[in-house]
Amino acid sequence: MVNDVTRIDTIAGNRTEAMKREADEPHSEVARFGAGKPLQLDAGVELSPFQIAYTTHGTLNAARSNAILICHALTGDQYVVGTHPVTGRPGWWENMVGAGKPIDTNRFFVICSNVLGGCMGTTGPASKNPANGEPYGLSLPVVTIPDMVRAQSMLLDHLGIEQLLCVTGGSMGAMQALQWAAAYPERVFAALPIAGAARHSAQNIAFHEVGRQAVMADPDWKGGIYFRDGSFPRRGLAVARMAAHITYLSDSALHRKFGRQLQDRSAITFGFDADFQVESYLRHQGSIFVERFDANSYLYITRAMDYFDLAADHGGVLANAFKKTKTRFCLVSFTSDWLFPTAEARQIVHALNAASASVSFAEIETDKGHDAFLLDEPELFDIVRGFLNSAARARGVA
Amino acid sequence: MVNDVTRIDTIAGNRTEAMKREADEPHSEVARFGAGKPLQLDAGVELSPFQIAYTTHGTLNAARSNAILICHALTGDQYVVGTHPVTGRPGWWENMVGAGKPIDTNRFFVICSNVLGGCMGTTGPASKNPANGEPYGLSLPVVTIPDMVRAQSMLLDHLGIEQLLCVTGGSMGAMQALQWAAAYPERVFAALPIAGAARHSAQNIAFHEVGRQAVMADPDWKGGIYFRDGSFPRRGLAVARMAAHITYLSDSALHRKFGRQLQDRSAITFGFDADFQVESYLRHQGSIFVERFDANSYLYITRAMDYFDLAADHGGVLANAFKKTKTRFCLVSFTSDWLFPTAEARQIVHALNAASASVSFAEIETDKGHDAFLLDEPELFDIVRGFLNSAARARGVA
Repeated sequence: MVNDVTRIDTIAGNRTEAMKREADEPHSEVARFGAGKPLQLDAGVELSPFQIAYTTHGTLNAARSNAILICHALTGDQYVVGTHPVTGRPGWWENMVGAGKPIDTNRFFVICSNVLGGCMGTTGPASKNPANGEPYGLSLPVVTIPDMVRAQSMLLDHLGIEQLLCVTGGSMGAMQALQWAAAYPERVFAALPIAGAARHSAQNIAFHEVGRQAVMADPDWKGGIYFRDGSFPRRGLAVARMAAHITYLSDSALHRKFGRQLQDRSAITFGFDADFQVESYLRHQGSIFVERFDANSYLYITRAMDYFDLAADHGGVLANAFKKTKTRFCLVSFTSDWLFPTAEARQIVHALNAASASVSFAEIETDKGHDAFLLDEPELFDIVRGFLNSAARARGVA
Repeated sequence: MVNDVTRIDTIAGNRTEAMKREADEPHSEVARFGAGKPLQLDAGVELSPFQIAYTTHGTLNAARSNAILICHALTGDQYVVGTHPVTGRPGWWENMVGAGKPIDTNRFFVICSNVLGGCMGTTGPASKNPANGEPYGLSLPVVTIPDMVRAQSMLLDHLGIEQLLCVTGGSMGAMQALQWAAAYPERVFAALPIAGAARHSAQNIAFHEVGRQAVMADPDWKGGIYFRDGSFPRRGLAVARMAAHITYLSDSALHRKFGRQLQDRSAITFGFDADFQVESYLRHQGSIFVERFDANSYLYITRAMDYFDLAADHGGVLANAFKKTKTRFCLVSFTSDWLFPTAEARQIVHALNAASASVSFAEIETDKGHDAFLLDEPELFDIVRGFLNSAARARGVA
């Protein structure tokens, strides 16, 4: 049972100093790229210096052939397993990654990096701009999914990894996995995009736009320079999170979890408190999110997803993104995912078929919606385990 | 093509004096109920005095048997046809109602009243509280769908109409039509609920909660007493409208209308302006809405929808709401409506079957989503025309 929160605008302002520190000095490993190694951005400018915060799990084998890159979703980060330094909660994919888990760290060398534009140690709008010592805010160029992947490829260079055994991720992580396979086919032995798409749909852009407008409409956003006076657009960001959170679930999951059940009361109160459990749950989601995420990062990363359109980047033909690819693909979708519905995955499968790629596809029956990729889904675990086994065998990984 | 709006927080503050006037002195007819005729509210209190603003179209026959009550949706009003006094735009159901139209004003006497809690002349939070001469704001008791219908029944008494030939409406209008049939079966010869449900789902409550939080998070909401200093939570209300508007359409309708098309530009701008047409469209919807609707009314009416649960009001068994009913029912749903999906309509049909009621049901194939009930849907027009003809024949209306 979550706690009742009377209204999101009454959330206490406990945004931690720790959170602000993580943007520049994260608890994880950091790869720093100086003046000699600028990052070329799609916006047409170079970002330099910049840094990538990441974690690794397991051991890289002698052949350097057992590396798996996990790409995180919109509000994820590099803490795929282990305690999160700000929230103190477990990693976001503990059920999937670890010793004996489907992504088995006894066997594989797992890398997970915070995305470009993020707020957990990779350069993003909350990072200090070395030019003036204050956070970039909106002065950071807008970044794209290809930019995120380009940065990750520099991290692999830094780690001395020529080829990934597999790149995987859910949601925006799936977008990155697809971009990896398209941009660096020779570096990707296998790709496993889960609950993703090759482009962001009009409806998804619309939901992101609502979230951005909620943030930018908050007077505490202050044109993106809220850091100057220590304010933070917590109300706007909480509303954005609440709206987004609905899209991560399904109508039936919400019905099963909450239905019309009341929150700690036996009858409706004829008021605007959280009478219903689903209201209390959403307020809770909004209130905890603002303690761990940067508002400008939310703008940047949602924008990167909106801009993603792999076919458009390849002359309007998605199959062209995968021409002559040798990468093995496995795509996964969930029946109740209405944010990235099965039809989006099928389009990718068709394009891969047209490119004569090796591809398998699984649609998993579940009522859990988009969030299913983060939850206990035995069928997903089996698919991931089986696909990685097969890839490892083909690649000669013990 | 809609105009670009850079950000919703830059919308000019042109909220008209006309809008504020309509709350007490509307352009339409008004029925005023004084101290002798209080309205009993579900909240357990009486509302007195109160008023109902309404329009009528066509002529009541001598037998007073040809009246059709049209119940409007969340943000609708009594201006079902004819020029809206604030926006100057046509009525919200011009394609359905009028001479020779499916709801034929040559034949039927059409009544449409602003709902209780509204802001176009029926008592609502924007109406002046006679006790102190300033708008009620949150001091108005929270109202329910049954309260709205109870008020409408007093309007019918006032108009001298014993029985409606038909009560109809889409969305929240369908909820009212169902409530009419349940609460006043002898006054409803036929009921035609379109794109509605007998209760608001968890997902729908969740979306409403996001909208309310967006309004209440706006510092210009000021605890609901924004009228005191002439402020108005336009940014919060615009965000609420944007989020809601997505739910009125369908993924495929958004894809067909907008896809990923850019707004008046040939390439993405790497920024947070409205690059995509769908963004510009949503901003436009948000910005025009705040010029014609009261923010507190939005809270009250969404709450009324959330509270609606016809089965719960009848011992948890929906069929009990329609025991021994003689009303003829026709239910309509749309295949792409994910706000009030066909499954909700089917539950009502099953309950009506269990109650041995006369019921027909049509699911209309369309990609237009929930908003289909307001749009040009020839199949809907045919169904409404046919059902009303049949009801009129059975009732002996010429």
